Amino acid sequence: MASYPPIPRSRENDYTAEAAAARRAFATEQTGVALEHVGAHSFDPAVLPGNIEHFTGVAQIPIGLAGPLLVDGEHAQGEFYVPLATTEGTLVASYNRGMKLLRAAGGVKVTVVDDAMQRAPVFIFDSAREARDFATWLDLHFGEIKAAAEATTSTGRLRDVERYLAGRFCFTRFNYTTGDAAGQNMTGKATLAACEWIRARHPELRHYTLEANLATDKKHSHINLLRTRGKRVVAEALIPDEVMRAVMNVSTDRVYRARQVATLGGQLSGLANNGSHSANGITAMFIACGQDVANVAESHAAMVYTELRENGDYYYSITMPALIVATYGGGTGLPTQRECLELLGCYGQGTVRKFAEIVGATVLCGEISLGAAIVAEEWVSAHDTYGRNRP
Amino acid sequence: MASYPPIPRSRENDYTAEAAAARRAFATEQTGVALEHVGAHSFDPAVLPGNIEHFTGVAQIPIGLAGPLLVDGEHAQGEFYVPLATTEGTLVASYNRGMKLLRAAGGVKVTVVDDAMQRAPVFIFDSAREARDFATWLDLHFGEIKAAAEATTSTGRLRDVERYLAGRFCFTRFNYTTGDAAGQNMTGKATLAACEWIRARHPELRHYTLEANLATDKKHSHINLLRTRGKRVVAEALIPDEVMRAVMNVSTDRVYRARQVATLGGQLSGLANNGSHSANGITAMFIACGQDVANVAESHAAMVYTELRENGDYYYSITMPALIVATYGGGTGLPTQRECLELLGCYGQGTVRKFAEIVGATVLCGEISLGAAIVAEEWVSAHDTYGRNRP
Amino acid sequence: MASYPPIPRSRENDYTAEAAAARRAFATEQTGVALEHVGAHSFDPAVLPGNIEHFTGVAQIPIGLAGPLLVDGEHAQGEFYVPLATTEGTLVASYNRGMKLLRAAGGVKVTVVDDAMQRAPVFIFDSAREARDFATWLDLHFGEIKAAAEATTSTGRLRDVERYLAGRFCFTRFNYTTGDAAGQNMTGKATLAACEWIRARHPELRHYTLEANLATDKKHSHINLLRTRGKRVVAEALIPDEVMRAVMNVSTDRVYRARQVATLGGQLSGLANNGSHSANGITAMFIACGQDVANVAESHAAMVYTELRENGDYYYSITMPALIVATYGGGTGLPTQRECLELLGCYGQGTVRKFAEIVGATVLCGEISLGAAIVAEEWVSAHDTYGRNRP
Amino acid sequence: MASYPPIPRSRENDYTAEAAAARRAFATEQTGVALEHVGAHSFDPAVLPGNIEHFTGVAQIPIGLAGPLLVDGEHAQGEFYVPLATTEGTLVASYNRGMKLLRAAGGVKVTVVDDAMQRAPVFIFDSAREARDFATWLDLHFGEIKAAAEATTSTGRLRDVERYLAGRFCFTRFNYTTGDAAGQNMTGKATLAACEWIRARHPELRHYTLEANLATDKKHSHINLLRTRGKRVVAEALIPDEVMRAVMNVSTDRVYRARQVATLGGQLSGLANNGSHSANGITAMFIACGQDVANVAESHAAMVYTELRENGDYYYSITMPALIVATYGGGTGLPTQRECLELLGCYGQGTVRKFAEIVGATVLCGEISLGAAIVAEEWVSAHDTYGRNRP
Repeated sequence: MASYPPIPRSRENDYTAEAAAARRAFATEQTGVALEHVGAHSFDPAVLPGNIEHFTGVAQIPIGLAGPLLVDGEHAQGEFYVPLATTEGTLVASYNRGMKLLRAAGGVKVTVVDDAMQRAPVFIFDSAREARDFATWLDLHFGEIKAAAEATTSTGRLRDVERYLAGRFCFTRFNYTTGDAAGQNMTGKATLAACEWIRARHPELRHYTLEANLATDKKHSHINLLRTRGKRVVAEALIPDEVMRAVMNVSTDRVYRARQVATLGGQLSGLANNGSHSANGITAMFIACGQDVANVAESHAAMVYTELRENGDYYYSITMPALIVATYGGGTGLPTQRECLELLGCYGQGTVRKFAEIVGATVLCGEISLGAAIVAEEWVSAHDTYGRNRP
Repeated sequence: MASYPPIPRSRENDYTAEAAAARRAFATEQTGVALEHVGAHSFDPAVLPGNIEHFTGVAQIPIGLAGPLLVDGEHAQGEFYVPLATTEGTLVASYNRGMKLLRAAGGVKVTVVDDAMQRAPVFIFDSAREARDFATWLDLHFGEIKAAAEATTSTGRLRDVERYLAGRFCFTRFNYTTGDAAGQNMTGKATLAACEWIRARHPELRHYTLEANLATDKKHSHINLLRTRGKRVVAEALIPDEVMRAVMNVSTDRVYRARQVATLGGQLSGLANNGSHSANGITAMFIACGQDVANVAESHAAMVYTELRENGDYYYSITMPALIVATYGGGTGLPTQRECLELLGCYGQGTVRKFAEIVGATVLCGEISLGAAIVAEEWVSAHDTYGRNRP
Repeated sequence: MASYPPIPRSRENDYTAEAAAARRAFATEQTGVALEHVGAHSFDPAVLPGNIEHFTGVAQIPIGLAGPLLVDGEHAQGEFYVPLATTEGTLVASYNRGMKLLRAAGGVKVTVVDDAMQRAPVFIFDSAREARDFATWLDLHFGEIKAAAEATTSTGRLRDVERYLAGRFCFTRFNYTTGDAAGQNMTGKATLAACEWIRARHPELRHYTLEANLATDKKHSHINLLRTRGKRVVAEALIPDEVMRAVMNVSTDRVYRARQVATLGGQLSGLANNGSHSANGITAMFIACGQDVANVAESHAAMVYTELRENGDYYYSITMPALIVATYGGGTGLPTQRECLELLGCYGQGTVRKFAEIVGATVLCGEISLGAAIVAEEWVSAHDTYGRNRP
Repeated sequence: MASYPPIPRSRENDYTAEAAAARRAFATEQTGVALEHVGAHSFDPAVLPGNIEHFTGVAQIPIGLAGPLLVDGEHAQGEFYVPLATTEGTLVASYNRGMKLLRAAGGVKVTVVDDAMQRAPVFIFDSAREARDFATWLDLHFGEIKAAAEATTSTGRLRDVERYLAGRFCFTRFNYTTGDAAGQNMTGKATLAACEWIRARHPELRHYTLEANLATDKKHSHINLLRTRGKRVVAEALIPDEVMRAVMNVSTDRVYRARQVATLGGQLSGLANNGSHSANGITAMFIACGQDVANVAESHAAMVYTELRENGDYYYSITMPALIVATYGGGTGLPTQRECLELLGCYGQGTVRKFAEIVGATVLCGEISLGAAIVAEEWVSAHDTYGRNRP
């Protein structure tokens, strides 16, 4: 099993242009493929430790601007131009059209209604009885556990510990607020400290594992829909019938009726999201703005609820129960990513809820735009116009 | 509502460096933020029509190489170096370690077991009775419907039409094979033609809508878990206990037991994926290789099934029921993206299943790496080492 | 471990009044409890073989009549008095009120839109590749497999075999029509014969198990919601606003709006049924009419879809995807059970769809009755009036 | 619409043998069917107010005894003979066999790990922002709300109020302990009082509805799996290999492996219960013991988790998160029902957890019995022997 050589690493400093070039050369040698464009980046690899290993170059993902997006948030107020990184034709045009519609309708109201990042250890006992009693013990010692957890972090705060009993296990969710960071690592470290504190003190605990599929990091789950992961964001708008007709060529009544059928379809299909395509907007903003893009798995979950008011106004709300965003840490400080966050006024302390609100408002614009297009039967023709590269 | 000006567009040719620069200048004017790095791209915007609107610049996402990955597929055979685009520290290192383990264990067996891309129109009737009779009518006319659909495409083939009756509706899924393309647009166009053929001929059909949440594009769903969306891929491996101990510092027995508890945790939490973090590997490959990254919403679904054999061997399988991949169309032809596909030998005709297999094998490596790290309690410390930028 | 003696059995004939009396005497001896009422049954135990073991007596469940129920089915036409066996106060009164409402509104239209009972063996292979190839092999041999299955039954017909690939397994659903019987045993026997035919012929099959949780007998599942178990029944009605107001003291508009919120609530809670309480009517009819009451687990699943028409008419539909009913076999021939089936004209050959329609229509009446009561805020007071025994 | 006459009611006293006889005569007149056996009941209808309306007669459901069942609970200790009311052949025999096995293995350990009955009002606001603020307001006023709720009941205690935000709604679950009663009505009345207290005091509340599909009465839901409805019961057992072989003719190893495949099958099918058939035992005990049988919809949910220990011992646990039981109120006081509860020592104050434990232990016995039978391939033949009446 010795045929293929390992990827080159620099013993002294692996985050240099030279080390990256060496890896590209190695790849070319192994495969015959030149990595010309991958090698074209505008920044010094010295910024990368903590973001990547085996740095070799970059993916260049085109960014299109959409907007202005009119937001009525508690943190984001006014108009924004939103950077969307994607290779899918029509996406920017469609969100842009939705932003135009919602601006004409008075903007999007957005509210962060909950906030919790978690790590979810499981505590293992001989039988269900000890697991149940442990759940009570956890309550009694919450203060000390909180102290043990928070000793590891300057910004993380342990909010509460949820407990779920099954078999001989006490599954938990340690819920934190995490400042401007998404907080997956912070919560991991804090929860490890809490668990070690517990292990040293609880006589009947056999074992614990730091994660047992109740935080559901990078995975959609019903528990996140119910109990929140990251930010729980509700975006709402009220669209007069005449505005819908003017911008979208369709009545609110028809759009509403199609939405009802789509909700029934979603119940049938067992959807994570009875809306249209929140993943499109979220992914494009996440790539542009240095978010952990794999969190689209959780973040795309949504509950859409609409009303057709007596005067023809269309009330549309979308609840995103697991929107995982950061304006600090992860990829947020990298060069293009930081510029995009700055474009939204979301770089620097205390900006994460503002960013969450802008994402939420963007998602709602995309929902209404696609929903109306399907009903107006412009959907396929729009893709023909804008997406001709894409079969 | 006239305050903010619209984003500049060039009437003559919007896909030029000048048009992009104009938009950056506009953004700077509006927000005071210079888009220096966003403006640094290595290609001519003339390649972009069909991929983006309002092109303004690029997101530069760092790529790390992992490998060699030893694959035993029907299309991918041998060793590969896998480009992973991410800003999350530890990710490349973790996948790389899993690839090392699995290589020592004899590689990953991968099989594409099904293949179907769909569009899902709903047909609307006066009552359930007509909807039911329409379902029968569909069967009788399948040949003609197939002909109408396929007249719009050179590569798409209509495989079958699934029907789901609820209320006064006949929900359907039109399932296609789509060659090397992911096929969302191709299937939209073909299904529209099929629907129009039907509308002209069925007297009791009141209306149809081209999509009603049963294809669940960009959304996880149970129907996709059951009925496949894109490629259905199974990756399998058999890891001897001594290999696990040597590379991961943990026994197969302990890893297996933790996996069982995680599956129970997943049942509790209502997970889309009882595994660990397939979204990480999939997202990183999707960004690098020009895939539609928003499809992570569907593609991250998985079913993990493991066995601890009597001799201590650990059999691990992961089934990805909705892996949506392309080696043609979408972002696959863009400069950095194409280079990454070429690195894997997956650019050009007839390569899509090979690419699916490599993604599948990569995912399995990441699953076992993280699963073992959690058990070996190296997880938090690894993030401390590799992810120090990330709170 | 010899303390407690076994339950008495008669070697000669266990289905006699004497054997039952001996068991009651034994129970009294062991526990001091006299089983006076349990011993009071009106029939000869000789009718019981095939329905119960260790026959000891009977549960007497009160039956109330509701109706007339006006049904517009394909098999049930006209008015019916429905026997409901329950101990829950208000239930009969509530269904009765719903029947009155729907009768005034012109009755309930009911349609059986699909029909399939299944057994779901899993076929086990060395790897996913052989499992996939086996799925194709199944198609090629469907005719012979069908013949092997149907050789065991005079009424069961193998309709199709669904295949679901995961890991190294080919999960299947063998779907049958089963005449007037529910068919769980018939399909078990037929599928066993089919599996043995396959086992003798397929060289790579390692093993099979006759059931692997895809038929989901006695358990709710999403697969049954999608693919039907037993009868798939849609009940529909159109209720004018003035009829709703006259009978229920509430407008259709208010009822409709509450229904929309309940559907959102159901998405949140992850419901098997976004309606109100189909299990109440189904259970009461199942107990009265000799059905397998444990099938309430599957049968209570439902999808409710409603419309508020422009003229104020309220369109209400409920789709029951897994209604498991029989008019032959099981408890249908026992004395009180048969009388209740006869009351509905559903005893004797060819009556099972008629019975399914009556159950479906009854369910819809209960849905609208409870839905309106909650909105009209009469719900708690009604339980105070009718359910005073029940805390 | 005047054709059919209404069901007779007695103005003076509707709960008499005469009133019931009049209804039977009426039914016979309308349909030609004599209700001879339905009319044969052993008790005075005067016991029925609060349990049924339009009392017409009884369903006689055969009861078989199973046992002795060896229980190691906190409330149920020792051996019990369990009354099972069913018309499905094999059921009693199968549970009886499981009880024999588990008795030989040392009995079933059962623990009630949680207890909560709920009513789930939704509070409706102008926008998400007010709904979020209301959730905080609820916390501040919990003491007063609790007092308002508990003023309506002598035994119900309001434990906590869960809040779930979506759209412009604050969905809640008011969780109570309810003594020996199941408590659906008690919680309805108490929550209505609490809501009225709130309505009078909260200025921004537009409206509330007493139930919005988060209690999911009579319906399976994921929220109940997570958060408990009724009793959350875990039953556990450890079965030595030699005991399994002696009683079931199969090794623990084979049973364990089949269980793993069934859990994967359950993930695929989207099951409410990855076990085998808890609904069978629960339904049979519920009918016999005067429970609200429609609650099988919720109560059949379960999570099975097993281990094959190194010495071949088979650890089996089943968690029932929504077991809804009562030993007071509802049908528990009716004649045959009371006798059956007395047989288990579960009639009278403070017995509800004992009853829950016996149900839990019974369920586990049935699980292992069926699981082993499927593997031992005795399943179909057993139904041939015991279920010959049933196609």
